[in-house]
Order: sequence, then structure tokens, then C-alpha cells
Amino acid sequence: MTQNIYDTPEFFQGYSQLARSVHGLDGAPEWPALRALVPNLQGRSVVDLGCGFGWFCRWAQEQGAADVLGLDVSDNMLTRARATTHGAAIRYQRMDLEQLQLAPRSIDLAYSALTLHYLERLPALFATVHQALKPGGRFVFSVEHPIYTAPARPGFVLDSDGQRIWPLNHYALRGPRRTDWLAKGVIKQHRTIGDYVNVLIRAGFTIAHLDEWAPTPAQLAAQPALAEEQDRPMMLLMAAAR
Amino acid sequence: MTQNIYDTPEFFQGYSQLARSVHGLDGAPEWPALRALVPNLQGRSVVDLGCGFGWFCRWAQEQGAADVLGLDVSDNMLTRARATTHGAAIRYQRMDLEQLQLAPRSIDLAYSALTLHYLERLPALFATVHQALKPGGRFVFSVEHPIYTAPARPGFVLDSDGQRIWPLNHYALRGPRRTDWLAKGVIKQHRTIGDYVNVLIRAGFTIAHLDEWAPTPAQLAAQPALAEEQDRPMMLLMAAAR
Repeated sequence: MTQNIYDTPEFFQGYSQLARSVHGLDGAPEWPALRALVPNLQGRSVVDLGCGFGWFCRWAQEQGAADVLGLDVSDNMLTRARATTHGAAIRYQRMDLEQLQLAPRSIDLAYSALTLHYLERLPALFATVHQALKPGGRFVFSVEHPIYTAPARPGFVLDSDGQRIWPLNHYALRGPRRTDWLAKGVIKQHRTIGDYVNVLIRAGFTIAHLDEWAPTPAQLAAQPALAEEQDRPMMLLMAAAR
Repeated sequence: MTQNIYDTPEFFQGYSQLARSVHGLDGAPEWPALRALVPNLQGRSVVDLGCGFGWFCRWAQEQGAADVLGLDVSDNMLTRARATTHGAAIRYQRMDLEQLQLAPRSIDLAYSALTLHYLERLPALFATVHQALKPGGRFVFSVEHPIYTAPARPGFVLDSDGQRIWPLNHYALRGPRRTDWLAKGVIKQHRTIGDYVNVLIRAGFTIAHLDEWAPTPAQLAAQPALAEEQDRPMMLLMAAAR
């Protein structure tokens, strides 16, 4: 069973203060790149796997989606979502994604932002998503980039010349990584880019796009701290089609 | 115009002494994984982009390929290939891959080993390969992994605890990397995994497999030095289908 860290008070309190929690989609610098992978939603059915505060669900409704299902394992997140991002086309539901079931050929877009790297097993989930998509439907997601999750000690250090380097190791060693991010003992599952790609292909998907997100020049000018993202990607964005 | 480092005497001399030069395909630890991506070649047409000493061309003929075209920009490599890996089904030809032309729907397998990261521009080449493949044909290649080509100073260092780390930086900064490998001033072209994937997709390919190569337990037991490849991948293997 995957860890449900979002219902740990210390973590939830910290998470609630992140720019992406306070400002929603516009607080996430990768959002413009991720949004570019999302098809036209007018009249479409959407499911959000790990919907969090529901920012994407509300945006999908604003884009004209006919129905939006937001799923999350965290009661804290769902309570906030129901209070702040509700809408006539939106349903929120508690769900352990490793137990996910969805009706066949019922969905146009499956979306997931920074959730899948918490899950221990992806093959069954990806197969469930694939069968739930209508032919031509899309699966668009972001995860923490494997370069970001791999290291034994994930944090920039300076080399002997004072250059900033990311201390990569253990890249091929799949499995849990215990980090202290917002709370002690947050567990992420490290896998490689190849793993994400090949599990999608084996589930029947066609890979449509793969983006190792980095800031645009305009974003860099506005937020110089994003230069770190040029040295090592923190996020992997993918789109796949049924 | 891409650098032709293989016709630099110092580089060629060093290259000729690598295990993969002396022992052929079996001297390359990634070969079993790459071979697994190659379809049955019985009666098939094959082109090898950057054929080097011709080890793969000879292997393809042994697998029953009907014709094998080995292309390389290096006269040194082609001279050696014609002398040591010739065969009735094999033709060797000097070619700058950035000028490549191939007849439409004439080829079953396009193969390339550790060559494409020397090329400045891939889109035209990938489009040429795509149109040259028969429907259902495959493009299988290996390149130096972007994690390997990215850093300003590509070499393991020890962190403050004595742990081996790969000093990753500059990952999103595409373009030439000047290294001293076998000779001074060898120029490779850094791009991201996303770049390889998206250029393939834009050329019309379907991604079939992506492998960030690491040794098997048996290989590690036989060659403990390969443990470095678990910390950071040196090679990216890909298969795509027309």
C-alpha cells in the first residue's frame, strides 16, 4: 500500500504553503508545458488521478469539460477541493489509485500531476487507464524526473571549482527513496524514464510526447532560481494516446 | 559539418584498442540488450548508420540478411571494415550521415550504434530513415545517454562521505560538448532524451522501446567495474517502428 503522506499534518501544512498550492496551476512553472499536451476539453470526460486541491479539475470545467472526476487518496486534499474548487461538472472521490477501476471507453483525458512517483506499481494502473480511454483519448501526466528521485542524497552540491552539480547515483536501482521533504520519511518510488515509457507501451499506449521540463528564457528572467532546473530536470512530462 | 574524429590518428589508435573494437559485438556489454531490439533479419535489407569496423554488418549477414549497407564517414573505419568484415551481402560506403539519401520503402532495419550523438542535426536524418523503411520496418539505435553527455566535467567524483557521484549539470543546455576522450577536443552533441523521442515522433515513428542501459546481475558479477553504469547510465538504447 502506497504511503498517504498528504494526510500527515506536518506534510499537509507545508504542502499547503507551496506556490502551486496557494496560486494553483499558475503557481507551477511547468504548467504551460503540461497544458500544451492537454487536448481540447469541450464536452469531454476527464479523470484526474491525484487531484489534490482540484485546481486542474476546476480548470477542466472552465475549458468546457462535460464531466470531471477528481480522485485522491487524501481526505485532507479532498476536503479542501470540495470547499474551494467545486463545480457542477466536477465529482471528487476518495481513491487508492492502485485499486483504480474505471468503465471501459468512458474517458477522453486521463490526467495526473506529480502523483505517480508515489505509487509502487504502475502496470495495472496504466492498463486500467488505457481500457478506460476512448480510442484517440489521451493520458497526460507529470512525475518527478528520475534524475531527481535517483540520488542517495538529492540536493545540489558544489564541485571543487565551486560549480553547482547534482550528485547523481543509483539511477538504475529502482525502488523506494526516503526523503525529508516537508515532513520526515516521505517515500517516493524511483524508476527510470525507460520504465515509464515501456510500461505505457506494454499497456497499449502510443507515446505522443516526452518533455524533461526546463524553464523558458522568459521564466528564467522572471524567476532566476529556476536556473537549477537547467542543471538537472525535476519534472518529467509525458503524453500518450490510446 | 560534423567532426570526423575517427580519422584523427590519435583517436583512431585509441579507439582500435577498446574492447568493443578488439572483440566486436561481444566486447560491448550493452550488445545483448541492443540485439534484443533487432527483429529477425532473415532475407531482410539492413542499413548501418556509422558502421565502424563492420561488426554489426557481418553479424547481420550471419543472421541471414539479404543485403547490408554499412555507412561511415571515416575512411579509416571503412578500410578496416572492408578488410576484416566483408561478405557477399555487405556493401560499405563512405557517407556523411547529415547528407544521407536512401530509396523509399527499401529497408527493413536501420541500425546505428554510438554514432548519432556526434551529429549536429537529427530531424532530416530521422525523416530520411523513416521514408526509407518499409511499413513495419524498425529503427534501432544506441547513443551516449544525455546524463553522460550533459556535464561540464563528465567524470565521477566523491562526495563528502566518499560516495561516488556523477556531477550532473547543464542537462537542459543542448549543443556541443568538447571532451578529451582518446584524443583532445572530441566534440559530441548533447541533447535530452525528450529530444530523441520527440524528433522520432515528429518524423512519423512509433516509439517501441527505450532502455537506459545498465548491467545485468551476471554482467556485474563478471565485470564489477560495470557498477558505475548503475550510478549513471552511459548509453541510451531505442527502438522505433514505421
